[in-house]
Amino acid sequence: MTSGALNRMFGAELFFKCENLQKIGAFKARGAVNAVMLLDEDTARGGVITHSSGNHAQALAYAASLRGIPCTIVMPKTAPVVKIEAVQGYGAEIVFCEPTLESRLETMMAIVATTGAHVVPPYNDDRVMAGQGTAGKELCEQVSNLDVVMAPVGGGGLLGGVSTAVRAMVPGARVIGAEPEIAADAKESLRTGVLQPPVDSMTIADGLRTGLGDLTLAQLISTGVQIETASEESIRRGTLLVMERLKLVIEPSAGVTLGVLLEQPDLVRGSRVGIVLCGGNVDLRPLWS
Amino acid sequence: MTSGALNRMFGAELFFKCENLQKIGAFKARGAVNAVMLLDEDTARGGVITHSSGNHAQALAYAASLRGIPCTIVMPKTAPVVKIEAVQGYGAEIVFCEPTLESRLETMMAIVATTGAHVVPPYNDDRVMAGQGTAGKELCEQVSNLDVVMAPVGGGGLLGGVSTAVRAMVPGARVIGAEPEIAADAKESLRTGVLQPPVDSMTIADGLRTGLGDLTLAQLISTGVQIETASEESIRRGTLLVMERLKLVIEPSAGVTLGVLLEQPDLVRGSRVGIVLCGGNVDLRPLWS
Repeated sequence: MTSGALNRMFGAELFFKCENLQKIGAFKARGAVNAVMLLDEDTARGGVITHSSGNHAQALAYAASLRGIPCTIVMPKTAPVVKIEAVQGYGAEIVFCEPTLESRLETMMAIVATTGAHVVPPYNDDRVMAGQGTAGKELCEQVSNLDVVMAPVGGGGLLGGVSTAVRAMVPGARVIGAEPEIAADAKESLRTGVLQPPVDSMTIADGLRTGLGDLTLAQLISTGVQIETASEESIRRGTLLVMERLKLVIEPSAGVTLGVLLEQPDLVRGSRVGIVLCGGNVDLRPLWS
Repeated sequence: MTSGALNRMFGAELFFKCENLQKIGAFKARGAVNAVMLLDEDTARGGVITHSSGNHAQALAYAASLRGIPCTIVMPKTAPVVKIEAVQGYGAEIVFCEPTLESRLETMMAIVATTGAHVVPPYNDDRVMAGQGTAGKELCEQVSNLDVVMAPVGGGGLLGGVSTAVRAMVPGARVIGAEPEIAADAKESLRTGVLQPPVDSMTIADGLRTGLGDLTLAQLISTGVQIETASEESIRRGTLLVMERLKLVIEPSAGVTLGVLLEQPDLVRGSRVGIVLCGGNVDLRPLWS
Protein backbone atom coordinates (compact mmCIF):
# COMPACT_ATOMS: atom_id res chain seq x y z
CA MET A 1 0.00 0.00 0.00
CA THR A 2 1.04 3.58 -0.56
CA SER A 3 0.04 7.03 0.70
CA GLY A 4 0.53 10.26 -1.21
CA ALA A 5 0.45 12.21 2.06
CA LEU A 6 3.24 10.11 3.61
CA ASN A 7 5.30 10.35 0.41
CA ARG A 8 5.05 14.15 0.54
CA MET A 9 5.84 14.20 4.26
CA PHE A 10 9.07 12.18 3.87
CA GLY A 11 10.08 13.31 0.36
CA ALA A 12 10.34 9.67 -0.70
CA GLU A 13 8.29 6.93 -2.32
CA LEU A 14 7.19 4.54 0.43
CA PHE A 15 5.81 1.06 -0.34
CA PHE A 16 4.27 -0.76 2.62
CA LYS A 17 4.24 -4.57 2.77
CA CYS A 18 1.20 -5.29 4.91
CA GLU A 19 1.96 -8.28 7.13
CA ASN A 20 -0.79 -7.07 9.46
CA LEU A 21 -3.11 -8.49 6.78
CA GLN A 22 -1.25 -11.85 6.88
CA LYS A 23 -2.83 -14.96 8.45
CA ILE A 24 -2.79 -14.63 12.29
CA GLY A 25 -2.24 -10.88 11.77
CA ALA A 26 1.57 -10.97 11.60
CA PHE A 27 4.52 -12.16 9.50
CA LYS A 28 5.15 -15.03 11.95
CA ALA A 29 2.79 -17.27 9.97
CA ARG A 30 5.42 -17.42 7.21
CA GLY A 31 8.28 -18.86 9.26
CA ALA A 32 6.15 -21.32 11.19
CA VAL A 33 4.54 -22.66 8.01
CA ASN A 34 7.94 -23.05 6.34
CA ALA A 35 9.39 -24.93 9.31
CA VAL A 36 6.38 -27.24 9.63
CA MET A 37 6.15 -27.99 5.90
CA LEU A 38 9.86 -28.90 5.76
CA LEU A 39 9.54 -31.64 8.41
CA ASP A 40 9.86 -35.21 7.14
CA GLU A 41 6.82 -37.45 7.61
CA ASP A 42 8.15 -39.27 10.68
CA THR A 43 9.05 -36.10 12.55
CA ALA A 44 5.82 -34.39 11.58
CA ARG A 45 3.76 -37.27 12.95
CA GLY A 46 5.21 -36.60 16.42
CA GLY A 47 3.86 -33.07 16.35
CA VAL A 48 5.46 -29.69 17.04
CA ILE A 49 5.93 -27.63 20.18
CA THR A 50 7.13 -24.19 21.23
CA HIS A 51 6.96 -21.87 24.20
CA SER A 52 5.42 -18.46 23.49
CA SER A 53 2.53 -16.28 24.51
CA GLY A 54 2.80 -14.12 21.41
CA ASN A 55 2.33 -14.27 17.67
CA HIS A 56 4.67 -17.27 17.25
CA ALA A 57 2.31 -19.42 19.32
CA GLN A 58 -0.61 -18.63 17.02
CA ALA A 59 1.61 -19.01 13.97
CA LEU A 60 2.78 -22.50 14.93
CA ALA A 61 -0.74 -23.58 15.86
CA TYR A 62 -1.92 -22.33 12.46
CA ALA A 63 0.92 -24.08 10.61
CA ALA A 64 0.29 -27.38 12.41
CA SER A 65 -3.41 -27.16 11.58
CA LEU A 66 -2.54 -26.71 7.89
CA ARG A 67 -0.48 -29.90 7.93
CA GLY A 68 -2.91 -31.69 10.26
CA ILE A 69 -0.36 -32.58 12.94
CA PRO A 70 -0.46 -32.17 16.74
CA CYS A 71 0.77 -28.91 18.26
CA THR A 72 1.56 -28.07 21.87
CA ILE A 73 2.11 -24.52 23.11
CA VAL A 74 3.73 -23.88 26.49
CA MET A 75 2.36 -20.60 27.82
CA PRO A 76 2.82 -18.72 31.07
CA LYS A 77 -0.36 -19.00 33.13
CA THR A 78 -0.46 -15.19 33.14
CA ALA A 79 -1.10 -15.06 29.35
CA PRO A 80 -4.12 -12.95 28.28
CA VAL A 81 -7.33 -14.88 27.58
CA VAL A 82 -7.53 -13.50 24.03
CA LYS A 83 -4.18 -15.11 23.15
CA ILE A 84 -5.14 -18.41 24.78
CA GLU A 85 -8.37 -18.54 22.81
CA ALA A 86 -6.64 -17.65 19.54
CA VAL A 87 -4.25 -20.62 19.91
CA GLN A 88 -7.07 -22.96 20.93
CA GLY A 89 -9.02 -21.77 17.90
CA TYR A 90 -6.41 -23.49 15.70
CA GLY A 91 -6.80 -26.72 17.67
CA ALA A 92 -3.47 -26.61 19.55
CA GLU A 93 -3.06 -27.96 23.07
CA ILE A 94 -1.92 -25.46 25.69
CA VAL A 95 0.22 -26.43 28.69
CA PHE A 96 0.57 -23.68 31.29
CA CYS A 97 3.75 -22.94 33.22
CA GLU A 98 5.14 -20.34 35.60
CA PRO A 99 5.87 -16.96 33.99
CA THR A 100 9.66 -17.41 33.93
CA LEU A 101 11.96 -18.46 31.11
CA GLU A 102 13.27 -21.34 33.26
CA SER A 103 9.77 -22.74 33.81
CA ARG A 104 8.94 -22.36 30.11
CA LEU A 105 12.00 -24.30 28.99
CA GLU A 106 11.71 -26.95 31.71
CA THR A 107 8.03 -27.55 30.93
CA MET A 108 8.69 -27.72 27.20
CA MET A 109 11.65 -30.11 27.47
CA ALA A 110 9.70 -32.43 29.78
CA ILE A 111 6.99 -32.73 27.12
CA VAL A 112 9.56 -33.23 24.36
CA ALA A 113 11.15 -36.04 26.42
CA THR A 114 7.85 -37.95 26.70
CA THR A 115 6.15 -37.19 23.35
CA GLY A 116 9.09 -36.63 21.00
CA ALA A 117 7.48 -33.43 19.73
CA HIS A 118 9.70 -31.31 17.46
CA VAL A 119 10.69 -27.85 18.77
CA VAL A 120 10.11 -24.92 16.38
CA PRO A 121 11.91 -21.87 17.82
CA PRO A 122 10.44 -18.38 17.28
CA TYR A 123 13.35 -16.88 15.32
CA ASN A 124 16.80 -18.43 15.86
CA ASP A 125 16.26 -21.09 13.20
CA ASP A 126 17.19 -21.11 9.51
CA ARG A 127 13.84 -22.54 8.38
CA VAL A 128 11.95 -19.89 10.33
CA MET A 129 14.23 -17.08 9.11
CA ALA A 130 13.84 -18.25 5.52
CA GLY A 131 10.06 -18.30 5.88
CA GLN A 132 9.92 -14.76 7.25
CA GLY A 133 12.20 -13.71 4.39
CA THR A 134 9.46 -14.44 1.85
CA ALA A 135 7.92 -11.12 2.92
CA GLY A 136 11.06 -9.44 1.57
CA LYS A 137 11.05 -11.61 -1.54
CA GLU A 138 7.47 -10.63 -2.36
CA LEU A 139 8.20 -6.97 -1.66
CA CYS A 140 11.09 -7.01 -4.16
CA GLU A 141 8.84 -8.77 -6.71
CA GLN A 142 5.97 -6.34 -6.20
CA VAL A 143 8.00 -3.10 -6.26
CA SER A 144 10.83 -2.59 -8.75
CA ASN A 145 14.09 -0.72 -8.15
CA LEU A 146 13.93 -0.35 -4.39
CA ASP A 147 16.76 1.76 -2.96
CA VAL A 148 16.07 0.92 0.69
CA VAL A 149 14.19 -1.84 2.52
CA MET A 150 13.25 -1.39 6.18
CA ALA A 151 11.94 -3.83 8.77
CA PRO A 152 11.77 -3.83 12.56
CA VAL A 153 14.21 -6.01 14.52
CA GLY A 154 13.51 -7.96 17.72
CA GLY A 155 14.82 -11.52 17.56
CA GLY A 156 16.04 -10.88 14.02
CA GLY A 157 14.07 -13.60 12.24
CA LEU A 158 12.16 -11.16 10.02
CA LEU A 159 15.07 -8.79 9.41
CA GLY A 160 17.54 -11.63 8.75
CA GLY A 161 15.20 -13.29 6.28
CA VAL A 162 14.29 -10.04 4.55
CA SER A 163 17.92 -8.92 4.25
CA THR A 164 18.84 -12.29 2.72
CA ALA A 165 16.09 -11.94 0.12
CA VAL A 166 16.98 -8.32 -0.69
CA ARG A 167 20.72 -9.15 -1.05
CA ALA A 168 19.85 -11.84 -3.59
CA MET A 169 17.26 -9.88 -5.55
CA VAL A 170 18.28 -6.20 -5.34
CA PRO A 171 21.97 -6.39 -4.40
CA GLY A 172 22.48 -2.62 -4.37
CA ALA A 173 19.64 -1.81 -1.95
CA ARG A 174 20.37 -0.79 1.62
CA VAL A 175 18.66 -2.80 4.35
CA ILE A 176 17.83 -0.89 7.54
CA GLY A 177 16.61 -2.53 10.73
CA ALA A 178 14.50 -0.36 13.06
CA GLU A 179 14.79 -0.81 16.81
CA PRO A 180 13.51 1.01 19.91
CA GLU A 181 16.16 3.33 21.34
CA ILE A 182 15.54 1.96 24.85
CA ALA A 183 15.98 -1.67 23.68
CA ALA A 184 18.85 -1.30 21.21
CA ASP A 185 20.61 -4.61 21.86
CA ALA A 186 20.61 -5.57 18.17
CA LYS A 187 22.38 -2.34 17.24
CA GLU A 188 24.96 -3.03 19.94
CA SER A 189 25.36 -6.66 18.84
CA LEU A 190 26.12 -5.52 15.29
CA ARG A 191 28.48 -2.78 16.47
CA THR A 192 30.49 -5.16 18.65
CA GLY A 193 30.03 -8.34 16.63
CA VAL A 194 29.18 -10.06 19.92
CA LEU A 195 25.68 -11.25 20.80
CA GLN A 196 24.22 -8.91 23.44
CA PRO A 197 21.50 -9.99 25.88
CA PRO A 198 18.08 -8.36 25.45
CA VAL A 199 17.68 -5.06 27.30
CA ASP A 200 15.07 -5.32 30.04
CA SER A 201 12.81 -2.51 28.81
CA MET A 202 9.11 -1.76 28.70
CA THR A 203 9.20 -0.30 25.19
CA ILE A 204 5.75 0.25 23.69
CA ALA A 205 6.97 -1.92 20.78
CA ASP A 206 6.48 -5.03 22.88
CA GLY A 207 7.19 -7.43 20.02
CA LEU A 208 10.77 -6.13 19.91
CA ARG A 209 11.78 -6.76 23.52
CA THR A 210 13.61 -10.01 22.65
CA GLY A 211 17.31 -10.20 21.78
CA LEU A 212 18.96 -11.63 18.67
CA GLY A 213 20.09 -15.26 18.46
CA ASP A 214 23.46 -16.44 17.19
CA LEU A 215 22.02 -17.50 13.82
CA THR A 216 20.12 -14.28 13.23
CA LEU A 217 23.08 -12.13 14.30
CA ALA A 218 25.37 -13.98 11.87
CA GLN A 219 22.85 -13.42 9.07
CA LEU A 220 22.48 -9.70 9.80
CA ILE A 221 26.28 -9.31 9.75
CA SER A 222 26.83 -11.30 6.57
CA THR A 223 24.12 -9.42 4.67
CA GLY A 224 25.40 -5.98 5.72
CA VAL A 225 22.38 -4.71 7.63
CA GLN A 226 22.39 -1.25 9.23
CA ILE A 227 20.38 -0.65 12.43
CA GLU A 228 18.78 2.67 13.42
CA THR A 229 16.74 3.51 16.51
CA ALA A 230 13.63 5.50 17.41
CA SER A 231 12.50 7.03 20.70
CA GLU A 232 9.27 5.87 22.33
CA GLU A 233 7.56 9.12 21.30
CA SER A 234 8.65 8.66 17.68
CA ILE A 235 7.42 5.05 17.70
CA ARG A 236 4.05 6.26 18.99
CA ARG A 237 3.86 8.96 16.31
CA GLY A 238 4.99 6.58 13.56
CA THR A 239 2.37 4.02 14.56
CA LEU A 240 -0.41 6.62 14.56
CA LEU A 241 0.76 8.00 11.18
CA VAL A 242 0.31 4.60 9.54
CA MET A 243 -3.07 4.07 11.17
CA GLU A 244 -4.32 7.55 10.27
CA ARG A 245 -2.97 7.73 6.72
CA LEU A 246 -3.16 4.12 5.50
CA LYS A 247 -6.22 3.29 7.65
CA LEU A 248 -4.47 0.07 8.68
CA VAL A 249 -4.38 -1.32 12.21
CA ILE A 250 -0.75 -1.99 13.15
CA GLU A 251 0.97 -2.81 16.41
CA PRO A 252 3.63 -0.39 17.74
CA SER A 253 6.39 -2.81 16.71
CA ALA A 254 5.34 -2.07 13.13
CA GLY A 255 5.51 1.69 13.70
CA VAL A 256 9.21 1.72 14.63
CA THR A 257 10.33 2.05 10.99
CA LEU A 258 8.38 5.28 10.50
CA GLY A 259 9.59 6.32 13.95
CA VAL A 260 13.16 6.05 12.66
CA LEU A 261 12.26 8.10 9.56
CA LEU A 262 10.60 10.82 11.65
CA GLU A 263 13.95 11.29 13.41
CA GLN A 264 16.18 10.77 10.36
CA PRO A 265 14.31 11.60 7.15
CA ASP A 266 17.62 11.96 5.34
CA LEU A 267 18.02 8.18 5.47
CA VAL A 268 15.51 7.86 2.62
CA ARG A 269 14.91 11.26 1.02
CA GLY A 270 14.50 10.92 -2.75
CA SER A 271 14.51 7.10 -2.51
CA ARG A 272 12.17 4.25 -3.28
CA VAL A 273 11.64 2.59 0.10
CA GLY A 274 10.05 -0.77 0.95
CA ILE A 275 8.75 -0.94 4.53
CA VAL A 276 7.59 -4.18 6.15
CA LEU A 277 4.66 -3.57 8.52
CA CYS A 278 5.23 -6.62 10.72
CA GLY A 279 1.80 -7.08 12.30
CA GLY A 280 -1.46 -5.68 13.61
CA ASN A 281 -2.22 -7.54 16.83
CA VAL A 282 -2.94 -4.79 19.32
CA ASP A 283 -5.51 -4.18 22.05
CA LEU A 284 -7.95 -1.63 20.57
CA ARG A 285 -10.37 -1.47 23.48
CA PRO A 286 -8.95 1.81 24.86
CA LEU A 287 -10.54 3.55 21.85
CA TRP A 288 -14.09 3.27 23.16
CA SER A 289 -13.81 2.17 26.75
CA MET B 1 -11.97 -7.55 1.79
CA THR B 2 -13.10 -10.70 3.49
CA SER B 3 -12.45 -12.52 6.77
CA GLY B 4 -12.83 -16.25 7.32
CA ALA B 5 -13.29 -15.66 11.05
CA LEU B 6 -16.16 -13.20 10.51
CA ASN B 7 -17.79 -15.51 7.96
CA ARG B 8 -17.73 -18.34 10.50
CA MET B 9 -19.04 -16.07 13.27
CA PHE B 10 -22.06 -14.91 11.23
CA GLY B 11 -22.64 -18.06 9.14
CA ALA B 12 -22.56 -15.94 5.99
CA GLU B 13 -20.18 -14.75 3.28
CA LEU B 14 -19.36 -11.12 4.01
CA PHE B 15 -17.71 -8.85 1.42
CA PHE B 16 -16.50 -5.50 2.71
CA LYS B 17 -16.33 -2.46 0.41
CA CYS B 18 -13.58 -0.40 2.01
CA GLU B 19 -14.50 3.27 1.68
CA ASN B 20 -12.13 3.96 4.59
CA LEU B 21 -9.40 3.46 1.96
CA GLN B 22 -11.11 6.01 -0.34
CA LYS B 23 -9.60 9.49 -0.91
CA ILE B 24 -10.17 11.67 2.21
CA GLY B 25 -10.84 8.43 4.13
CA ALA B 26 -14.57 8.21 3.41
CA PHE B 27 -17.15 7.64 0.64
CA LYS B 28 -17.97 11.37 0.62
CA ALA B 29 -15.25 11.95 -1.99
CA ARG B 30 -17.47 10.19 -4.56
CA GLY B 31 -20.50 12.46 -4.30
CA ALA B 32 -18.54 15.70 -4.11
CA VAL B 33 -16.44 14.77 -7.15
CA ASN B 34 -19.55 13.85 -9.14
CA ALA B 35 -21.29 17.12 -8.27
CA VAL B 36 -18.23 19.24 -9.08
CA MET B 37 -17.47 17.46 -12.36
CA LEU B 38 -21.08 17.89 -13.56
CA LEU B 39 -20.99 21.71 -13.25
CA ASP B 40 -20.96 23.64 -16.53
CA GLU B 41 -17.90 25.80 -17.17
CA ASP B 42 -19.55 29.08 -16.18
CA THR B 43 -20.86 27.79 -12.87
CA ALA B 44 -17.61 26.02 -12.08
CA ARG B 45 -15.62 29.21 -12.59
CA GLY B 46 -17.56 30.82 -9.72
CA GLY B 47 -16.38 28.12 -7.33
CA VAL B 48 -18.25 25.88 -4.89
CA ILE B 49 -19.23 26.27 -1.25
CA THR B 50 -20.72 24.23 1.57
CA HIS B 51 -21.07 24.33 5.34
CA SER B 52 -19.64 21.33 7.15
CA SER B 53 -17.02 20.44 9.72
CA GLY B 54 -16.95 16.79 8.70
CA ASN B 55 -16.01 14.55 5.81
CA HIS B 56 -18.11 16.49 3.27
CA ALA B 57 -15.93 19.58 3.80
CA GLN B 58 -12.78 17.65 2.97
CA ALA B 59 -14.54 15.89 0.09
CA LEU B 60 -15.65 19.13 -1.55
CA ALA B 61 -12.24 20.74 -1.05
CA TYR B 62 -10.66 17.65 -2.68
CA ALA B 63 -13.15 17.69 -5.59
CA ALA B 64 -12.60 21.41 -6.23
CA SER B 65 -8.82 20.91 -6.22
CA LEU B 66 -9.22 18.17 -8.86
CA ARG B 67 -11.10 20.55 -11.14
CA GLY B 68 -8.95 23.52 -10.17
CA ILE B 69 -11.78 25.80 -9.06
CA PRO B 70 -12.22 27.90 -5.89
CA CYS B 71 -13.79 26.29 -2.83
CA THR B 72 -15.11 27.92 0.35
CA ILE B 73 -16.00 25.92 3.46
CA VAL B 74 -18.11 27.50 6.22
CA MET B 75 -17.08 25.89 9.50
CA PRO B 76 -18.09 26.49 13.11
CA LYS B 77 -15.21 28.16 14.93
CA THR B 78 -15.29 25.23 17.36
CA ALA B 79 -14.15 22.76 14.66
CA PRO B 80 -11.12 20.62 15.60
CA VAL B 81 -7.76 21.82 14.27
CA VAL B 82 -7.13 18.51 12.48
CA LYS B 83 -10.26 19.01 10.33
CA ILE B 84 -9.38 22.64 9.60
CA GLU B 85 -5.89 21.64 8.46
CA ALA B 86 -7.21 18.80 6.33
CA VAL B 87 -9.46 21.19 4.39
CA GLN B 88 -6.70 23.79 4.06
CA GLY B 89 -4.42 21.04 2.76
CA TYR B 90 -6.61 20.83 -0.34
CA GLY B 91 -6.35 24.59 -0.86
CA ALA B 92 -9.89 25.54 0.20
CA GLU B 93 -10.69 28.81 1.96
CA ILE B 94 -12.33 28.50 5.38
CA VAL B 95 -14.81 31.03 6.76
CA PHE B 96 -15.64 30.55 10.42
CA CYS B 97 -19.09 31.05 11.94
CA GLU B 98 -20.91 30.49 15.21
CA PRO B 99 -21.57 26.81 16.03
CA THR B 100 -25.30 26.94 15.18
CA LEU B 101 -27.14 25.84 12.04
CA GLU B 102 -28.58 29.37 11.68
CA SER B 103 -25.15 30.98 11.67
CA ARG B 104 -23.83 28.37 9.21
CA LEU B 105 -26.63 28.99 6.70
CA GLU B 106 -26.55 32.79 7.13
CA THR B 107 -22.78 32.94 6.66
CA MET B 108 -22.92 30.66 3.64
CA MET B 109 -25.76 32.50 1.91
CA ALA B 110 -24.04 35.85 2.45
CA ILE B 111 -20.97 34.54 0.63
CA VAL B 112 -23.10 33.06 -2.15
CA ALA B 113 -24.82 36.44 -2.60
CA THR B 114 -21.52 38.26 -3.12
CA THR B 115 -19.41 35.62 -4.95
CA GLY B 116 -22.02 33.58 -6.80
CA ALA B 117 -20.42 30.37 -5.50
CA HIS B 118 -22.40 27.19 -6.18
CA VAL B 119 -23.72 25.30 -3.13
CA VAL B 120 -22.98 21.56 -2.98
CA PRO B 121 -25.10 20.03 -0.20
CA PRO B 122 -23.76 17.08 1.80
CA TYR B 123 -26.45 14.53 0.87
CA ASN B 124 -29.85 15.90 -0.18
CA ASP B 125 -28.82 16.31 -3.82
CA ASP B 126 -29.26 13.94 -6.76
CA ARG B 127 -25.69 14.45 -8.05
CA VAL B 128 -24.23 13.76 -4.62
CA MET B 129 -26.44 10.71 -4.09
CA ALA B 130 -25.53 9.33 -7.53
CA GLY B 131 -21.84 9.78 -6.76
CA GLN B 132 -22.06 7.94 -3.44
CA GLY B 133 -23.96 5.20 -5.27
CA THR B 134 -20.87 4.29 -7.28
CA ALA B 135 -19.66 2.50 -4.14
CA GLY B 136 -22.64 0.18 -4.53
CA LYS B 137 -22.13 -0.12 -8.28
CA GLU B 138 -18.52 -1.21 -7.79
CA LEU B 139 -19.50 -3.64 -5.02
CA CYS B 140 -22.02 -5.34 -7.35
CA GLU B 141 -19.38 -5.50 -10.10
CA GLN B 142 -16.71 -6.90 -7.78
CA VAL B 143 -18.87 -9.53 -6.04
CA SER B 144 -21.35 -11.64 -7.98
CA ASN B 145 -24.74 -12.87 -6.80
CA LEU B 146 -25.13 -10.75 -3.68
CA ASP B 147 -28.23 -11.61 -1.63
CA VAL B 148 -28.00 -8.61 0.69
CA VAL B 149 -26.26 -5.22 0.59
CA MET B 150 -25.85 -3.21 3.80
CA ALA B 151 -24.79 0.39 4.38
CA PRO B 152 -25.17 2.82 7.28
CA VAL B 153 -27.73 5.61 7.06
CA GLY B 154 -27.39 9.18 8.34
CA GLY B 155 -28.48 11.76 5.77
CA GLY B 156 -29.23 8.95 3.33
CA GLY B 157 -26.89 10.01 0.51
CA LEU B 158 -24.83 6.82 0.65
CA LEU B 159 -27.76 4.46 1.28
CA GLY B 160 -29.96 6.12 -1.37
CA GLY B 161 -27.22 5.94 -3.98
CA VAL B 162 -26.24 2.38 -3.10
CA SER B 163 -29.85 1.15 -3.11
CA THR B 164 -30.39 2.72 -6.54
CA ALA B 165 -27.32 0.93 -7.92
CA VAL B 166 -28.27 -2.41 -6.35
CA ARG B 167 -31.86 -2.21 -7.65
CA ALA B 168 -30.54 -1.70 -11.18
CA MET B 169 -27.79 -4.32 -11.07
CA VAL B 170 -29.03 -7.07 -8.71
CA PRO B 171 -32.80 -6.51 -8.62
CA GLY B 172 -33.46 -9.43 -6.27
CA ALA B 173 -31.04 -8.36 -3.54
CA ARG B 174 -32.30 -6.92 -0.27
CA VAL B 175 -30.87 -3.54 0.76
CA ILE B 176 -30.59 -2.95 4.51
CA GLY B 177 -29.72 0.40 6.06
CA ALA B 178 -28.09 0.32 9.49
CA GLU B 179 -28.87 3.04 12.03
CA PRO B 180 -28.11 3.67 15.71
CA GLU B 181 -31.06 2.64 17.91
CA ILE B 182 -30.86 5.96 19.79
CA ALA B 183 -30.95 8.00 16.54
CA ALA B 184 -33.49 6.01 14.50
CA ASP B 185 -35.14 8.87 12.65
CA ALA B 186 -34.58 7.26 9.22
CA LYS B 187 -36.37 4.09 10.33
CA GLU B 188 -39.28 6.21 11.59
CA SER B 189 -39.33 8.28 8.39
CA LEU B 190 -39.63 5.12 6.31
CA ARG B 191 -42.27 3.64 8.63
CA THR B 192 -44.45 6.75 8.50
CA GLY B 193 -43.57 7.94 5.00
CA VAL B 194 -43.09 11.40 6.52
CA LEU B 195 -39.70 13.07 6.91
CA GLN B 196 -38.73 13.01 10.62
CA PRO B 197 -36.32 15.53 12.15
CA PRO B 198 -32.94 14.17 13.33
CA VAL B 199 -32.96 12.82 16.88
CA ASP B 200 -30.75 14.90 19.17
CA SER B 201 -28.49 12.05 20.34
CA MET B 202 -24.84 11.59 21.24
CA THR B 203 -24.52 8.24 19.47
CA ILE B 204 -20.93 7.03 19.16
CA ALA B 205 -21.63 6.79 15.41
CA ASP B 206 -21.28 10.56 15.09
CA GLY B 207 -21.47 10.52 11.29
CA LEU B 208 -25.06 9.29 11.54
CA ARG B 209 -26.52 12.04 13.74
CA THR B 210 -28.05 13.89 10.76
CA GLY B 211 -31.57 13.29 9.49
CA LEU B 212 -32.74 12.32 5.98
CA GLY B 213 -33.63 14.94 3.36
CA ASP B 214 -36.74 14.89 1.17
CA LEU B 215 -34.80 13.63 -1.86
CA THR B 216 -32.99 10.85 0.00
CA LEU B 217 -36.18 9.74 1.77
CA ALA B 218 -38.01 9.50 -1.56
CA GLN B 219 -35.17 7.42 -2.99
CA LEU B 220 -35.09 5.04 -0.02
CA ILE B 221 -38.85 4.51 -0.33
CA SER B 222 -38.88 3.99 -4.09
CA THR B 223 -36.01 1.47 -3.96
CA GLY B 224 -37.58 -0.57 -1.14
CA VAL B 225 -34.92 -0.18 1.52
CA GLN B 226 -35.31 -1.81 4.93
CA ILE B 227 -33.79 -0.16 8.02
CA GLU B 228 -32.52 -2.00 11.11
CA THR B 229 -30.97 -0.58 14.27
CA ALA B 230 -28.13 -1.40 16.66
CA SER B 231 -27.52 -0.42 20.28
CA GLU B 232 -24.48 1.66 21.22
CA GLU B 233 -22.81 -1.41 22.73
CA SER B 234 -23.38 -3.42 19.54
CA ILE B 235 -21.98 -0.55 17.43
CA ARG B 236 -18.88 -0.49 19.64
CA ARG B 237 -18.45 -4.27 19.35
CA GLY B 238 -19.07 -4.25 15.59
CA THR B 239 -16.50 -1.50 15.08
CA LEU B 240 -13.88 -3.37 17.11
CA LEU B 241 -14.64 -6.63 15.27
CA VAL B 242 -13.81 -5.04 11.92
CA MET B 243 -10.66 -3.43 13.29
CA GLU B 244 -9.47 -6.63 14.98
CA ARG B 245 -10.33 -9.08 12.21
CA LEU B 246 -9.79 -7.05 9.02
CA LYS B 247 -7.03 -4.88 10.57
CA LEU B 248 -8.75 -1.85 9.04
CA VAL B 249 -9.24 1.45 10.83
CA ILE B 250 -12.93 2.39 10.61
CA GLU B 251 -15.06 5.01 12.33
CA PRO B 252 -17.97 3.86 14.52
CA SER B 253 -20.45 4.94 11.81
CA ALA B 254 -18.94 2.13 9.71
CA GLY B 255 -19.39 -0.42 12.51
CA VAL B 256 -23.16 -0.02 12.74
CA THR B 257 -23.79 -2.64 10.02
CA LEU B 258 -21.95 -5.35 11.97
CA GLY B 259 -23.67 -4.02 15.10
CA VAL B 260 -27.02 -4.81 13.45
CA LEU B 261 -25.81 -8.32 12.52
CA LEU B 262 -24.56 -8.99 16.07
CA GLU B 263 -28.15 -8.41 17.25
CA GLN B 264 -29.92 -10.06 14.29
CA PRO B 265 -27.66 -12.64 12.66
CA ASP B 266 -30.73 -14.24 11.05
CA LEU B 267 -30.94 -11.27 8.66
CA VAL B 268 -28.05 -12.71 6.65
CA ARG B 269 -27.40 -16.32 7.67
CA GLY B 270 -26.45 -18.41 4.65
CA SER B 271 -26.32 -15.32 2.41
CA ARG B 272 -23.75 -13.47 0.33
CA VAL B 273 -23.63 -10.04 1.91
CA GLY B 274 -21.99 -6.84 0.64
CA ILE B 275 -21.20 -4.37 3.43
CA VAL B 276 -20.12 -0.78 2.77
CA LEU B 277 -17.58 0.40 5.36
CA CYS B 278 -18.30 4.11 5.02
CA GLY B 279 -15.10 5.64 6.40
CA GLY B 280 -12.11 5.56 8.71
CA ASN B 281 -11.71 9.09 10.09
CA VAL B 282 -11.47 8.59 13.83
CA ASP B 283 -9.32 9.97 16.63
CA LEU B 284 -6.83 7.18 17.47
CA ARG B 285 -4.83 9.05 20.11
CA PRO B 286 -6.60 7.34 23.04
CA LEU B 287 -4.71 4.14 22.08
CA TRP B 288 -1.36 5.38 23.39
CA SER B 289 -2.09 8.48 25.41
